[in-house]
Amino acid sequence: MSKLQYSTSMSLDGFVAGPDQSPDNPLGVGGHLLHEWMRALAAWRRDAGLEGGEINASTAVYEAEDNVGAIIMGRNMFGGGSGPWGDEPWMGWWGDDPPFHMPVFVLTHHPRDPLEFPGGTSFTFVSDGIDVALGLARHAANGGDVAVSGGASSAKQYLAAGLVDEIKIHLVPVFLGEGVRLFEDQALSAITLEQVRAIEAPGVTHLTYRIVR
Amino acid sequence: MSKLQYSTSMSLDGFVAGPDQSPDNPLGVGGHLLHEWMRALAAWRRDAGLEGGEINASTAVYEAEDNVGAIIMGRNMFGGGSGPWGDEPWMGWWGDDPPFHMPVFVLTHHPRDPLEFPGGTSFTFVSDGIDVALGLARHAANGGDVAVSGGASSAKQYLAAGLVDEIKIHLVPVFLGEGVRLFEDQALSAITLEQVRAIEAPGVTHLTYRIVR
Repeated sequence: MSKLQYSTSMSLDGFVAGPDQSPDNPLGVGGHLLHEWMRALAAWRRDAGLEGGEINASTAVYEAEDNVGAIIMGRNMFGGGSGPWGDEPWMGWWGDDPPFHMPVFVLTHHPRDPLEFPGGTSFTFVSDGIDVALGLARHAANGGDVAVSGGASSAKQYLAAGLVDEIKIHLVPVFLGEGVRLFEDQALSAITLEQVRAIEAPGVTHLTYRIVR
Repeated sequence: MSKLQYSTSMSLDGFVAGPDQSPDNPLGVGGHLLHEWMRALAAWRRDAGLEGGEINASTAVYEAEDNVGAIIMGRNMFGGGSGPWGDEPWMGWWGDDPPFHMPVFVLTHHPRDPLEFPGGTSFTFVSDGIDVALGLARHAANGGDVAVSGGASSAKQYLAAGLVDEIKIHLVPVFLGEGVRLFEDQALSAITLEQVRAIEAPGVTHLTYRIVR
C-alpha cells in the first residue's frame, strides 16, 4: 500500500528552517546545518553529480527514500514569493537539473502550467487543495510512496487532515533558536504515534514514527 | 570531573509537561505519558518499592543515572505554589519517602530550613541563585554528577548560563499539543552540541548530547 510519508531534518529545538528565509537563503539563518549529515554522504553527492563523501549509518536511511515515487511540496519550498506567478515565472531553486528526478506536485493558490526538466523532474502546480494533490501524487507514484517535503506548512496541513502515515525526523544536534517550528499545533495531541525505529548516525539520529489510526 | 547534566523526558513536539499543571496533576494534562517508559521498568519499580516490570534497552539508561550524587530542582517541581512557604509548609509531592535518596537542592526566592527524610532524601532550599545551588550540589555529590531535574525553567537558567555539560533527552512518541516547552529560547543558538549517543528502546529514544565549549 502506497504510504504518505513526511520526512524532514529538524533541530533539537524543533525548527525545520532558520529565521530570515529569503531567495538567497531559502533555509534561513543556520538552516544549512540541518542538512550537513546528508550532504556528507557519498550517496547524496553521487545523486548531485559530485564525487567523494562518506558511507555511514545514514547511507541506508538516505537510500531507503528510493521507494518514494512522487513528492508534494508547498509553494514556500518551490519558492518565488507569494501571489500570481507573473510573466517570467520562478523556475525553482535548483537550476537546470532539480535533484528530485520524479514528479513533484506544488501546492499553490495560483494556477500555472507544468514544468518538465530533462533529468526526470517535473513540477505540477495544484491549486485545488491537498486532497487533489495527494490523489495526483499517488497516481504518479505508481505504487511507490508519496513524500510530503518541506515546508512545514504543507506537512502541517496533511498531518491535521489525518492523511500522513509515517513521520521521519532526522534530528540534528543543533539549536537554531528561532525559525520555522514544525510541531506547534495544539490539534497534534489528537494524533497517536508509534515509534518504529531510531537509528544513530554521525551528527544525526533518524527517527521513524507511524501514525496509529 | 563532576558533570552537570540535564535529563528529561520530552514529547516529540518539545514539551516536558502538559497544560494545566496543578497540585492534583503536577505533570499537566497528558504529562504522565512522558514517563511511561520509565514506570514500566523493573528497575524503576524496585526503586519505588514495587514488584514486576520489564527489563529492556531503557534499563541500562535508567541505571546509568546512578552516577548522580545530587539533584537541583526548581520550586515548581518541588511544588506548593509560589510565594513564602507559610506556617504549614508544603513537604513535596512524594510523601514520607521521596524517591531521590540523595541531597536535593531546591531553587526558591523564599528561604526555608532544610528537610530530611529517613530514606536519605534531603531538601535544601537555596535562595542565593543558581551558582550557589550548583556549588552546594557539587560539594554534596562528592565527586558524582549533579543533575538538574525539572522543571524547565531551572534547566533553562543553567543552560543559558553555560553551566550544563550534558543534555539527556528521553524522546517519547507522543504529541502533547501544548504545555511547558523545553527549548524555546533564542539564546540557545549560541550553544554548540555534539551528539554522544542515541539508544532505541520500547516507546522512547534516549538521546545524549554534550555541550561543546
